[in-house]
Amino acid sequence: MSQSRAHEADYRHGLRVYWEDTDAGGVVFYANYLKFFERARTEWLRELGFSQELMRQSQGRMFVVSRTAVSYLAPARLDDWVSVTVELREQGRASMTLFQQAWRDGQLLAEGEIRIGCVDVASFRPARMPEDLLARLSTLILPSS
Amino acid sequence: MSQSRAHEADYRHGLRVYWEDTDAGGVVFYANYLKFFERARTEWLRELGFSQELMRQSQGRMFVVSRTAVSYLAPARLDDWVSVTVELREQGRASMTLFQQAWRDGQLLAEGEIRIGCVDVASFRPARMPEDLLARLSTLILPSS
Amino acid sequence: MSQSRAHEADYRHGLRVYWEDTDAGGVVFYANYLKFFERARTEWLRELGFSQELMRQSQGRMFVVSRTAVSYLAPARLDDWVSVTVELREQGRASMTLFQQAWRDGQLLAEGEIRIGCVDVASFRPARMPEDLLARLSTLILPSS
Amino acid sequence: MSQSRAHEADYRHGLRVYWEDTDAGGVVFYANYLKFFERARTEWLRELGFSQELMRQSQGRMFVVSRTAVSYLAPARLDDWVSVTVELREQGRASMTLFQQAWRDGQLLAEGEIRIGCVDVASFRPARMPEDLLARLSTLILPSS
Repeated sequence: MSQSRAHEADYRHGLRVYWEDTDAGGVVFYANYLKFFERARTEWLRELGFSQELMRQSQGRMFVVSRTAVSYLAPARLDDWVSVTVELREQGRASMTLFQQAWRDGQLLAEGEIRIGCVDVASFRPARMPEDLLARLSTLILPSS
Repeated sequence: MSQSRAHEADYRHGLRVYWEDTDAGGVVFYANYLKFFERARTEWLRELGFSQELMRQSQGRMFVVSRTAVSYLAPARLDDWVSVTVELREQGRASMTLFQQAWRDGQLLAEGEIRIGCVDVASFRPARMPEDLLARLSTLILPSS
Repeated sequence: MSQSRAHEADYRHGLRVYWEDTDAGGVVFYANYLKFFERARTEWLRELGFSQELMRQSQGRMFVVSRTAVSYLAPARLDDWVSVTVELREQGRASMTLFQQAWRDGQLLAEGEIRIGCVDVASFRPARMPEDLLARLSTLILPSS
Repeated sequence: MSQSRAHEADYRHGLRVYWEDTDAGGVVFYANYLKFFERARTEWLRELGFSQELMRQSQGRMFVVSRTAVSYLAPARLDDWVSVTVELREQGRASMTLFQQAWRDGQLLAEGEIRIGCVDVASFRPARMPEDLLARLSTLILPSS
Protein backbone atom coordinates (compact mmCIF):
# COMPACT_ATOMS: atom_id res chain seq x y z
CA MET A 1 0.00 0.00 0.00
CA SER A 2 2.94 2.28 0.45
CA GLN A 3 5.76 2.97 -1.96
CA SER A 4 8.98 4.93 -2.09
CA ARG A 5 9.07 8.15 -4.02
CA ALA A 6 11.52 8.69 -6.85
CA HIS A 7 13.58 11.62 -8.02
CA GLU A 8 11.28 14.32 -9.35
CA ALA A 9 11.85 17.90 -8.32
CA ASP A 10 10.68 18.99 -4.87
CA TYR A 11 7.91 21.44 -4.27
CA ARG A 12 9.27 24.64 -2.78
CA HIS A 13 7.51 27.38 -0.79
CA GLY A 14 9.18 30.64 0.25
CA LEU A 15 8.43 32.68 3.35
CA ARG A 16 9.83 35.59 5.33
CA VAL A 17 10.88 35.46 9.00
CA TYR A 18 8.97 38.09 11.02
CA TRP A 19 9.16 39.18 14.69
CA GLU A 20 6.37 36.74 15.57
CA ASP A 21 8.60 33.82 14.50
CA THR A 22 11.58 34.66 16.69
CA ASP A 23 12.38 34.15 20.37
CA ALA A 24 14.66 35.77 22.95
CA GLY A 25 17.60 33.77 21.57
CA GLY A 26 17.44 36.15 18.60
CA VAL A 27 16.51 33.38 16.19
CA VAL A 28 13.47 31.51 14.90
CA PHE A 29 11.73 29.59 17.73
CA TYR A 30 12.21 25.91 16.83
CA ALA A 31 8.52 25.00 17.18
CA ASN A 32 7.74 27.47 14.42
CA TYR A 33 9.45 25.26 11.82
CA LEU A 34 6.41 23.01 12.21
CA LYS A 35 4.33 26.01 11.12
CA PHE A 36 6.66 26.73 8.21
CA PHE A 37 6.48 23.07 7.12
CA GLU A 38 2.71 23.15 7.30
CA ARG A 39 2.42 26.33 5.22
CA ALA A 40 4.47 24.57 2.54
CA ARG A 41 2.34 21.40 2.72
CA THR A 42 -0.82 23.50 2.42
CA GLU A 43 0.47 25.31 -0.66
CA TRP A 44 1.70 21.99 -2.13
CA LEU A 45 -1.80 20.52 -1.70
CA ARG A 46 -3.28 23.65 -3.25
CA GLU A 47 -0.92 23.28 -6.21
CA LEU A 48 -2.20 19.71 -6.58
CA GLY A 49 -5.65 21.31 -6.91
CA PHE A 50 -6.77 20.60 -3.40
CA SER A 51 -8.29 22.85 -0.68
CA GLN A 52 -8.32 21.63 2.94
CA GLU A 53 -11.11 24.02 3.95
CA LEU A 54 -13.29 22.65 1.14
CA MET A 55 -12.52 19.06 2.21
CA ARG A 56 -13.47 19.96 5.79
CA GLN A 57 -16.73 21.65 4.91
CA SER A 58 -17.98 19.53 2.00
CA GLN A 59 -16.63 16.09 2.91
CA GLY A 60 -16.32 16.27 6.69
CA ARG A 61 -12.71 15.15 6.60
CA MET A 62 -9.51 16.87 7.60
CA PHE A 63 -5.83 16.15 7.95
CA VAL A 64 -4.24 15.81 11.36
CA VAL A 65 -0.54 15.49 12.09
CA SER A 66 0.21 12.19 13.81
CA ARG A 67 4.01 12.26 14.03
CA THR A 68 6.83 14.77 13.55
CA ALA A 69 10.56 14.11 13.70
CA VAL A 70 12.60 17.23 13.10
CA SER A 71 16.28 18.16 13.41
CA TYR A 72 17.18 21.83 13.91
CA LEU A 73 20.55 22.44 12.30
CA ALA A 74 21.19 26.17 12.00
CA PRO A 75 19.41 29.28 13.27
CA ALA A 76 17.36 31.61 11.05
CA ARG A 77 16.95 35.28 11.91
CA LEU A 78 14.56 38.17 11.47
CA ASP A 79 14.10 39.15 7.79
CA ASP A 80 15.60 35.91 6.48
CA TRP A 81 13.95 34.41 3.41
CA VAL A 82 13.34 30.71 4.03
CA SER A 83 12.58 28.15 1.35
CA VAL A 84 10.64 25.06 2.48
CA THR A 85 10.48 21.86 0.44
CA VAL A 86 7.86 19.10 0.36
CA GLU A 87 8.58 15.58 -0.81
CA LEU A 88 6.12 12.69 -0.61
CA ARG A 89 7.84 9.71 1.03
CA GLU A 90 5.06 7.24 1.72
CA GLN A 91 1.39 7.13 0.84
CA GLY A 92 -1.47 5.02 2.15
CA ARG A 93 -5.25 5.30 1.87
CA ALA A 94 -5.69 7.45 4.96
CA SER A 95 -2.22 8.77 5.65
CA MET A 96 1.02 9.94 4.09
CA THR A 97 4.54 10.75 5.18
CA LEU A 98 6.36 13.82 3.88
CA PHE A 99 9.99 14.74 4.05
CA GLN A 100 10.53 18.47 4.44
CA GLN A 101 13.48 20.80 4.63
CA ALA A 102 13.91 24.50 5.39
CA TRP A 103 16.75 26.32 3.59
CA ARG A 104 18.20 29.83 3.68
CA ASP A 105 20.30 30.38 0.59
CA GLY A 106 22.52 27.31 0.47
CA GLN A 107 22.23 26.49 4.16
CA LEU A 108 20.00 23.76 5.55
CA LEU A 109 18.20 25.09 8.68
CA ALA A 110 15.91 22.21 9.64
CA GLU A 111 14.60 18.99 8.20
CA GLY A 112 12.34 16.15 9.16
CA GLU A 113 9.50 13.78 8.48
CA ILE A 114 5.87 14.69 9.05
CA ARG A 115 3.20 12.03 9.05
CA ILE A 116 -0.35 13.21 8.44
CA GLY A 117 -3.57 11.24 8.58
CA CYS A 118 -6.98 11.90 7.13
CA VAL A 119 -9.73 11.77 9.79
CA ASP A 120 -13.45 12.28 10.13
CA VAL A 121 -14.04 15.80 11.47
CA ALA A 122 -16.51 14.71 14.15
CA SER A 123 -15.03 11.42 15.37
CA PHE A 124 -11.33 11.95 14.65
CA ARG A 125 -11.26 8.35 13.33
CA PRO A 126 -9.13 7.56 10.27
CA ALA A 127 -10.95 8.19 7.00
CA ARG A 128 -9.97 7.43 3.40
CA MET A 129 -8.55 10.43 1.58
CA PRO A 130 -10.74 11.90 -1.19
CA GLU A 131 -10.39 9.84 -4.40
CA ASP A 132 -9.22 12.77 -6.51
CA LEU A 133 -6.41 13.46 -4.05
CA LEU A 134 -5.38 9.79 -3.92
CA ALA A 135 -5.30 9.71 -7.71
CA ARG A 136 -3.25 12.91 -7.84
CA LEU A 137 -0.79 11.71 -5.20
CA SER A 138 -0.27 8.38 -6.97
CA THR A 139 1.17 10.24 -9.95
CA LEU A 140 3.92 11.51 -7.63
CA ILE A 141 4.92 7.98 -6.64
CA LEU A 142 7.10 5.78 -8.75
CA PRO A 143 7.33 2.03 -8.10
CA SER A 144 10.55 1.19 -6.27
CA SER A 145 12.88 -0.68 -8.58
CA MET B 1 -28.46 48.19 30.15
CA SER B 2 -24.85 48.85 31.00
CA GLN B 3 -23.40 50.15 34.22
CA SER B 4 -20.06 51.14 35.68
CA ARG B 5 -18.32 48.77 38.03
CA ALA B 6 -17.37 49.83 41.51
CA HIS B 7 -14.45 49.16 43.80
CA GLU B 8 -14.35 45.50 44.69
CA ALA B 9 -11.08 43.63 44.45
CA ASP B 10 -9.81 42.60 41.02
CA TYR B 11 -9.47 39.02 39.91
CA ARG B 12 -5.81 38.12 39.49
CA HIS B 13 -4.20 35.31 37.47
CA GLY B 14 -0.49 34.52 37.58
CA LEU B 15 1.60 33.08 34.75
CA ARG B 16 5.22 32.48 33.85
CA VAL B 17 6.99 33.88 30.76
CA TYR B 18 8.45 31.06 28.63
CA TRP B 19 10.59 31.06 25.47
CA GLU B 20 7.44 30.78 23.34
CA ASP B 21 6.29 34.18 24.63
CA THR B 22 9.42 36.12 23.73
CA ASP B 23 10.78 37.60 20.51
CA ALA B 24 14.18 38.58 19.15
CA GLY B 25 14.03 41.85 21.10
CA GLY B 26 14.66 39.66 24.17
CA VAL B 27 11.26 40.47 25.67
CA VAL B 28 7.64 39.31 25.54
CA PHE B 29 6.17 39.76 22.06
CA TYR B 30 3.49 42.44 22.48
CA ALA B 31 0.74 40.43 20.76
CA ASN B 32 1.13 37.79 23.45
CA TYR B 33 -0.33 40.09 26.10
CA LEU B 34 -3.65 39.45 24.37
CA LYS B 35 -3.07 35.75 25.12
CA PHE B 36 -2.16 36.53 28.74
CA PHE B 37 -5.27 38.66 29.13
CA GLU B 38 -7.41 35.89 27.69
CA ARG B 39 -5.99 33.24 30.01
CA ALA B 40 -6.94 35.49 32.93
CA ARG B 41 -10.46 36.09 31.56
CA THR B 42 -10.93 32.35 31.08
CA GLU B 43 -9.90 31.59 34.67
CA TRP B 44 -12.05 34.47 35.93
CA LEU B 45 -15.07 32.99 34.12
CA ARG B 46 -14.18 29.57 35.54
CA GLU B 47 -14.04 31.08 39.04
CA LEU B 48 -17.53 32.46 38.40
CA GLY B 49 -18.53 28.84 37.79
CA PHE B 50 -18.54 29.05 34.04
CA SER B 51 -16.90 26.86 31.33
CA GLN B 52 -16.59 28.22 27.80
CA GLU B 53 -16.18 24.74 26.27
CA LEU B 54 -19.41 23.64 27.96
CA MET B 55 -21.21 26.75 26.65
CA ARG B 56 -19.94 26.02 23.15
CA GLN B 57 -20.93 22.37 23.13
CA SER B 58 -24.19 22.43 25.09
CA GLN B 59 -25.58 25.84 24.17
CA GLY B 60 -24.02 26.55 20.80
CA ARG B 61 -22.71 29.91 21.92
CA MET B 62 -19.20 31.25 22.34
CA PHE B 63 -17.41 34.47 23.13
CA VAL B 64 -15.55 36.38 20.46
CA VAL B 65 -13.33 39.38 20.96
CA SER B 66 -14.69 42.40 19.13
CA ARG B 67 -12.30 45.15 20.22
CA THR B 68 -8.96 45.45 21.99
CA ALA B 69 -7.17 48.63 23.03
CA VAL B 70 -3.87 47.93 24.74
CA SER B 71 -0.90 50.05 25.84
CA TYR B 72 2.48 48.35 26.25
CA LEU B 73 4.38 50.15 28.98
CA ALA B 74 7.38 48.06 30.05
CA PRO B 75 9.02 44.88 28.74
CA ALA B 76 8.73 41.49 30.46
CA ARG B 77 11.46 38.87 30.08
CA LEU B 78 11.99 35.13 30.15
CA ASP B 79 11.21 33.57 33.55
CA ASP B 80 9.27 36.63 34.77
CA TRP B 81 6.17 35.95 36.82
CA VAL B 82 3.32 38.07 35.47
CA SER B 83 0.09 38.82 37.31
CA VAL B 84 -2.92 39.64 35.13
CA THR B 85 -6.04 41.35 36.48
CA VAL B 86 -9.64 41.28 35.25
CA GLU B 87 -12.17 43.97 36.04
CA LEU B 88 -15.67 44.14 34.60
CA ARG B 89 -16.27 47.63 33.21
CA GLU B 90 -19.50 47.35 31.23
CA GLN B 91 -22.05 44.62 30.78
CA GLY B 92 -24.87 44.18 28.31
CA ARG B 93 -27.02 41.18 27.31
CA ALA B 94 -24.66 39.89 24.65
CA SER B 95 -21.38 41.65 25.36
CA MET B 96 -19.13 42.99 28.07
CA THR B 97 -16.07 45.18 28.38
CA LEU B 98 -13.20 44.25 30.65
CA PHE B 99 -10.29 46.31 31.87
CA GLN B 100 -7.13 44.26 32.26
CA GLN B 101 -3.59 44.89 33.44
CA ALA B 102 -0.39 42.84 33.47
CA TRP B 103 2.00 43.44 36.36
CA ARG B 104 5.46 42.16 37.31
CA ASP B 105 6.07 42.83 40.98
CA GLY B 106 5.11 46.48 41.38
CA GLN B 107 5.60 47.38 37.71
CA LEU B 108 2.75 47.80 35.23
CA LEU B 109 3.70 46.08 31.94
CA ALA B 110 0.57 46.48 29.83
CA GLU B 111 -3.06 47.46 30.23
CA GLY B 112 -6.15 47.88 28.16
CA GLU B 113 -9.79 47.28 27.45
CA ILE B 114 -11.11 44.12 25.84
CA ARG B 115 -14.65 43.95 24.54
CA ILE B 116 -16.10 40.48 24.07
CA GLY B 117 -19.40 39.47 22.55
CA CYS B 118 -21.45 36.31 22.85
CA VAL B 119 -22.30 34.83 19.44
CA ASP B 120 -24.04 31.83 17.96
CA VAL B 121 -21.36 29.26 17.04
CA ALA B 122 -22.74 28.60 13.54
CA SER B 123 -23.84 32.06 12.42
CA PHE B 124 -21.49 34.28 14.44
CA ARG B 125 -24.51 36.52 15.13
CA PRO B 126 -24.85 38.14 18.55
CA ALA B 127 -26.56 35.90 21.09
CA ARG B 128 -27.75 36.57 24.62
CA MET B 129 -25.34 35.31 27.26
CA PRO B 130 -26.50 32.32 29.34
CA GLU B 131 -28.88 33.44 32.11
CA ASP B 132 -26.76 32.03 34.91
CA LEU B 133 -23.75 33.97 33.68
CA LEU B 134 -25.76 37.19 33.34
CA ALA B 135 -27.03 36.71 36.88
CA ARG B 136 -23.54 36.06 38.18
CA LEU B 137 -22.04 39.06 36.38
CA SER B 138 -24.75 41.38 37.68
CA THR B 139 -23.52 40.73 41.22
CA LEU B 140 -20.19 42.24 40.19
CA ILE B 141 -21.82 45.48 39.06
CA LEU B 142 -22.73 48.24 41.44
CA PRO B 143 -25.01 51.10 40.36
CA SER B 144 -22.98 54.21 39.65
CA SER B 145 -23.65 56.81 42.28
CA MET C 1 6.45 67.47 14.75
CA SER C 2 3.51 65.38 13.65
CA GLN C 3 1.31 65.83 10.59
CA SER C 4 -1.72 64.24 9.02
CA ARG C 5 -1.28 62.07 6.01
CA ALA C 6 -3.03 62.81 2.73
CA HIS C 7 -4.61 60.71 0.03
CA GLU C 8 -1.96 58.59 -1.65
CA ALA C 9 -2.60 54.91 -2.25
CA ASP C 10 -2.17 52.49 0.65
CA TYR C 11 0.50 49.86 0.79
CA ARG C 12 -1.02 46.39 0.55
CA HIS C 13 0.41 43.01 1.63
CA GLY C 14 -1.31 39.69 0.90
CA LEU C 15 -1.16 36.55 3.04
CA ARG C 16 -2.83 33.17 3.33
CA VAL C 17 -4.66 31.89 6.44
CA TYR C 18 -3.14 28.60 7.63
CA TRP C 19 -4.09 26.17 10.43
CA GLU C 20 -1.68 27.93 12.79
CA ASP C 21 -3.75 31.13 12.49
CA THR C 22 -7.09 29.62 13.47
CA ASP C 23 -8.69 28.66 16.78
CA ALA C 24 -11.41 26.27 17.92
CA GLY C 25 -14.07 28.77 16.84
CA GLY C 26 -13.14 27.74 13.28
CA VAL C 27 -11.83 31.21 12.44
CA VAL C 28 -8.66 33.30 12.70
CA PHE C 29 -7.68 33.87 16.36
CA TYR C 30 -8.13 37.62 16.90
CA ALA C 31 -4.66 38.14 18.40
CA ASN C 32 -3.19 36.94 15.11
CA TYR C 33 -4.37 40.07 13.30
CA LEU C 34 -1.60 41.84 15.20
CA LYS C 35 0.81 39.43 13.51
CA PHE C 36 -0.78 40.04 10.12
CA PHE C 37 -0.55 43.80 10.63
CA GLU C 38 3.10 43.48 11.59
CA ARG C 39 3.98 41.38 8.55
CA ALA C 40 2.51 44.12 6.39
CA ARG C 41 4.38 46.88 8.27
CA THR C 42 7.63 44.93 7.89
CA GLU C 43 7.15 44.56 4.13
CA TRP C 44 6.11 48.21 3.86
CA LEU C 45 9.35 49.23 5.60
CA ARG C 46 11.28 46.90 3.31
CA GLU C 47 9.62 48.51 0.29
CA LEU C 48 10.79 51.88 1.65
CA GLY C 49 14.31 50.39 1.49
CA PHE C 50 14.58 49.61 5.14
CA SER C 51 15.57 46.40 7.02
CA GLN C 52 14.74 46.09 10.74
CA GLU C 53 17.35 43.36 11.30
CA LEU C 54 20.02 45.61 9.80
CA MET C 55 18.88 48.52 11.99
CA ARG C 56 19.06 46.26 15.06
CA GLN C 57 22.51 44.90 14.32
CA SER C 58 24.28 47.92 12.84
CA GLN C 59 22.59 50.78 14.70
CA GLY C 60 21.47 49.17 17.94
CA ARG C 61 17.93 50.39 17.51
CA MET C 62 14.67 48.57 17.01
CA PHE C 63 10.96 49.25 16.82
CA VAL C 64 8.65 48.29 19.63
CA VAL C 65 4.87 48.48 19.60
CA SER C 66 3.59 50.87 22.27
CA ARG C 67 -0.15 50.88 21.59
CA THR C 68 -2.66 48.89 19.56
CA ALA C 69 -6.37 49.62 19.13
CA VAL C 70 -8.10 47.08 16.90
CA SER C 71 -11.70 46.27 16.01
CA TYR C 72 -12.53 42.76 14.80
CA LEU C 73 -15.42 42.99 12.38
CA ALA C 74 -15.81 39.71 10.51
CA PRO C 75 -14.20 36.27 10.81
CA ALA C 76 -11.61 34.92 8.37
CA ARG C 77 -11.23 31.19 7.78
CA LEU C 78 -8.67 28.61 6.75
CA ASP C 79 -7.36 29.12 3.19
CA ASP C 80 -8.68 32.69 2.98
CA TRP C 81 -6.48 35.21 1.21
CA VAL C 82 -6.19 38.33 3.33
CA SER C 83 -4.97 41.70 2.15
CA VAL C 84 -3.47 43.98 4.79
CA THR C 85 -3.02 47.73 4.27
CA VAL C 86 -0.59 50.17 5.86
CA GLU C 87 -1.18 53.90 6.05
CA LEU C 88 1.04 56.36 7.89
CA ARG C 89 -1.12 58.55 10.14
CA GLU C 90 1.34 60.38 12.35
CA GLN C 91 5.09 60.67 12.43
CA GLY C 92 7.48 61.95 15.06
CA ARG C 93 11.25 61.64 15.52
CA ALA C 94 11.09 58.42 17.53
CA SER C 95 7.61 57.10 16.86
CA MET C 96 4.86 56.80 14.30
CA THR C 97 1.21 55.78 14.19
CA LEU C 98 -0.12 53.57 11.42
CA PHE C 99 -3.67 52.82 10.41
CA GLN C 100 -4.10 49.26 9.17
CA GLN C 101 -6.92 47.18 7.76
CA ALA C 102 -7.34 43.50 6.87
CA TRP C 103 -9.61 42.69 3.93
CA ARG C 104 -10.88 39.50 2.30
CA ASP C 105 -12.23 40.31 -1.13
CA GLY C 106 -14.50 43.27 -0.52
CA GLN C 107 -15.08 42.56 3.16
CA LEU C 108 -13.32 44.40 5.98
CA LEU C 109 -12.22 41.87 8.63
CA ALA C 110 -10.32 44.01 11.13
CA GLU C 111 -8.87 47.49 11.41
CA GLY C 112 -7.02 49.59 13.87
CA GLU C 113 -4.22 51.92 14.83
CA ILE C 114 -0.76 50.71 15.78
CA ARG C 115 1.73 53.03 17.43
CA ILE C 116 5.38 52.01 17.20
CA GLY C 117 8.39 53.60 18.81
CA CYS C 118 12.08 53.40 18.00
CA VAL C 119 14.16 52.37 21.04
CA ASP C 120 17.73 51.59 21.95
CA VAL C 121 18.17 47.80 21.90
CA ALA C 122 19.94 47.63 25.27
CA SER C 123 18.08 50.25 27.32
CA PHE C 124 14.65 50.22 25.64
CA ARG C 125 14.74 54.04 25.87
CA PRO C 126 13.28 56.07 23.00
CA ALA C 127 15.78 56.71 20.21
CA ARG C 128 15.60 58.86 17.10
CA MET C 129 14.76 56.89 13.98
CA PRO C 130 17.55 56.54 11.40
CA GLU C 131 17.84 59.71 9.27
CA ASP C 132 17.30 57.91 5.98
CA LEU C 133 14.05 56.42 7.28
CA LEU C 134 12.86 59.80 8.62
CA ALA C 135 13.62 61.34 5.25
CA ARG C 136 11.80 58.59 3.42
CA LEU C 137 8.75 58.76 5.70
CA SER C 138 8.49 62.52 5.32
CA THR C 139 7.84 62.05 1.61
CA LEU C 140 4.69 60.13 2.58
CA ILE C 141 3.35 63.01 4.63
CA LEU C 142 1.57 65.98 3.12
CA PRO C 143 1.00 69.14 5.13
CA SER C 144 -2.56 69.32 6.36
CA SER C 145 -4.41 72.06 4.52
CA MET D 1 29.49 9.95 29.08
CA SER D 2 25.83 9.19 28.77
CA GLN D 3 23.77 6.77 30.78
CA SER D 4 20.23 5.42 30.92
CA ARG D 5 17.90 6.73 33.56
CA ALA D 6 16.21 4.43 36.03
CA HIS D 7 12.81 4.33 37.66
CA GLU D 8 12.39 7.38 39.89
CA ALA D 9 9.21 9.37 39.70
CA ASP D 10 8.73 11.73 36.77
CA TYR D 11 8.50 15.46 37.12
CA ARG D 12 4.99 16.64 36.29
CA HIS D 13 3.74 20.10 35.23
CA GLY D 14 0.05 20.95 34.81
CA LEU D 15 -1.41 23.48 32.41
CA ARG D 16 -4.77 24.57 31.04
CA VAL D 17 -5.75 24.57 27.33
CA TYR D 18 -6.84 28.07 26.24
CA TRP D 19 -8.24 29.42 22.95
CA GLU D 20 -4.71 30.37 21.84
CA ASP D 21 -3.71 26.68 21.90
CA THR D 22 -6.48 25.40 19.64
CA ASP D 23 -7.01 25.36 15.88
CA ALA D 24 -9.98 25.17 13.53
CA GLY D 25 -10.11 21.39 14.03
CA GLY D 26 -11.51 22.21 17.48
CA VAL D 27 -8.48 20.71 19.25
CA VAL D 28 -4.99 21.67 20.39
CA PHE D 29 -2.76 22.57 17.42
CA TYR D 30 -0.11 19.82 17.34
CA ALA D 31 2.85 22.22 17.22
CA ASN D 32 1.74 23.61 20.57
CA TYR D 33 2.69 20.37 22.33
CA LEU D 34 6.28 21.51 21.79
CA LYS D 35 5.39 24.61 23.80
CA PHE D 36 3.73 22.53 26.51
CA PHE D 37 6.80 20.26 26.69
CA GLU D 38 9.06 23.27 26.98
CA ARG D 39 7.02 24.86 29.77
CA ALA D 40 7.41 21.60 31.71
CA ARG D 41 11.18 21.44 31.02
CA THR D 42 11.56 25.04 32.18
CA GLU D 43 9.72 24.37 35.43
CA TRP D 44 11.67 21.12 35.90
CA LEU D 45 14.94 23.06 35.55
CA ARG D 46 13.62 25.68 37.95
CA GLU D 47 12.78 22.92 40.46
CA LEU D 48 16.39 21.74 40.11
CA GLY D 49 17.34 25.24 41.20
CA PHE D 50 18.18 26.55 37.78
CA SER D 51 17.06 29.70 35.88
CA GLN D 52 17.60 29.87 32.12
CA GLU D 53 17.38 33.66 32.04
CA LEU D 54 20.11 33.86 34.67
CA MET D 55 22.28 31.42 32.69
CA ARG D 56 21.76 33.55 29.57
CA GLN D 57 22.60 36.86 31.21
CA SER D 58 25.35 35.87 33.65
CA GLN D 59 27.08 33.03 31.80
CA GLY D 60 26.32 33.80 28.15
CA ARG D 61 24.94 30.34 27.55
CA MET D 62 21.49 29.11 26.62
CA PHE D 63 19.72 25.92 25.68
CA VAL D 64 18.60 25.31 22.13
CA VAL D 65 16.45 22.45 20.91
CA SER D 66 18.33 20.34 18.38
CA ARG D 67 15.89 17.49 17.74
CA THR D 68 12.25 16.69 18.47
CA ALA D 69 10.42 13.44 17.75
CA VAL D 70 6.79 13.54 18.83
CA SER D 71 3.75 11.31 18.31
CA TYR D 72 0.31 12.88 18.60
CA LEU D 73 -2.08 10.24 19.91
CA ALA D 74 -5.33 11.86 21.01
CA PRO D 75 -6.77 15.36 20.73
CA ALA D 76 -7.05 17.78 23.67
CA ARG D 77 -9.73 20.46 23.77
CA LEU D 78 -10.43 23.89 25.19
CA ASP D 79 -10.48 23.96 29.01
CA ASP D 80 -8.73 20.57 29.32
CA TRP D 81 -6.20 20.25 32.10
CA VAL D 82 -3.04 18.68 30.70
CA SER D 83 -0.26 17.13 32.74
CA VAL D 84 3.19 17.10 31.14
CA THR D 85 6.01 14.86 32.36
CA VAL D 86 9.78 15.24 32.09
CA GLU D 87 12.20 12.33 32.30
CA LEU D 88 15.93 12.59 31.70
CA ARG D 89 16.98 9.91 29.23
CA GLU D 90 20.54 10.79 28.27
CA GLN D 91 23.01 13.35 29.52
CA GLY D 92 26.27 14.62 28.10
CA ARG D 93 28.45 17.65 28.88
CA ALA D 94 26.71 19.99 26.47
CA SER D 95 23.44 18.25 25.71
CA MET D 96 20.70 16.06 27.10
CA THR D 97 17.75 14.07 25.84
CA LEU D 98 14.41 14.16 27.61
CA PHE D 99 11.41 11.92 27.23
CA GLN D 100 8.14 13.79 27.69
CA GLN D 101 4.47 12.92 27.73
CA ALA D 102 1.25 14.93 27.83
CA TRP D 103 -1.71 13.37 29.66
CA ARG D 104 -5.34 14.32 30.25
CA ASP D 105 -6.71 12.26 33.12
CA GLY D 106 -5.68 8.73 32.23
CA GLN D 107 -5.31 9.37 28.50
CA LEU D 108 -1.98 9.85 26.77
CA LEU D 109 -2.26 12.75 24.30
CA ALA D 110 1.28 13.08 22.95
CA GLU D 111 4.78 11.85 23.72
CA GLY D 112 8.25 12.16 22.39
CA GLU D 113 11.93 12.80 22.80
CA ILE D 114 13.42 16.28 22.90
CA ARG D 115 17.16 16.79 22.58
CA ILE D 116 18.51 20.07 23.86
CA GLY D 117 22.02 21.45 23.63
CA CYS D 118 23.81 24.14 25.59
CA VAL D 119 25.33 26.81 23.32
CA ASP D 120 27.21 30.08 23.56
CA VAL D 121 24.69 32.91 23.15
CA ALA D 122 26.77 34.83 20.60
CA SER D 123 28.26 32.04 18.47
CA PHE D 124 25.60 29.32 18.85
CA ARG D 125 28.50 26.85 19.28
CA PRO D 126 28.16 23.99 21.78
CA ALA D 127 29.18 24.97 25.31
CA ARG D 128 29.58 22.92 28.46
CA MET D 129 26.58 23.15 30.77
CA PRO D 130 27.12 25.02 34.06
CA GLU D 131 28.84 22.76 36.62
CA ASP D 132 26.11 23.07 39.20
CA LEU D 133 23.52 21.92 36.67
CA LEU D 134 25.72 18.99 35.55
CA ALA D 135 26.14 17.97 39.18
CA ARG D 136 22.43 18.22 39.83
CA LEU D 137 21.51 16.26 36.69
CA SER D 138 23.95 13.47 37.55
CA THR D 139 21.94 12.74 40.70
CA LEU D 140 18.97 11.93 38.45
CA ILE D 141 20.90 9.31 36.54
CA LEU D 142 21.35 5.78 37.81
CA PRO D 143 23.92 3.43 36.26
CA SER D 144 22.25 0.97 33.94
CA SER D 145 22.30 -2.50 35.48
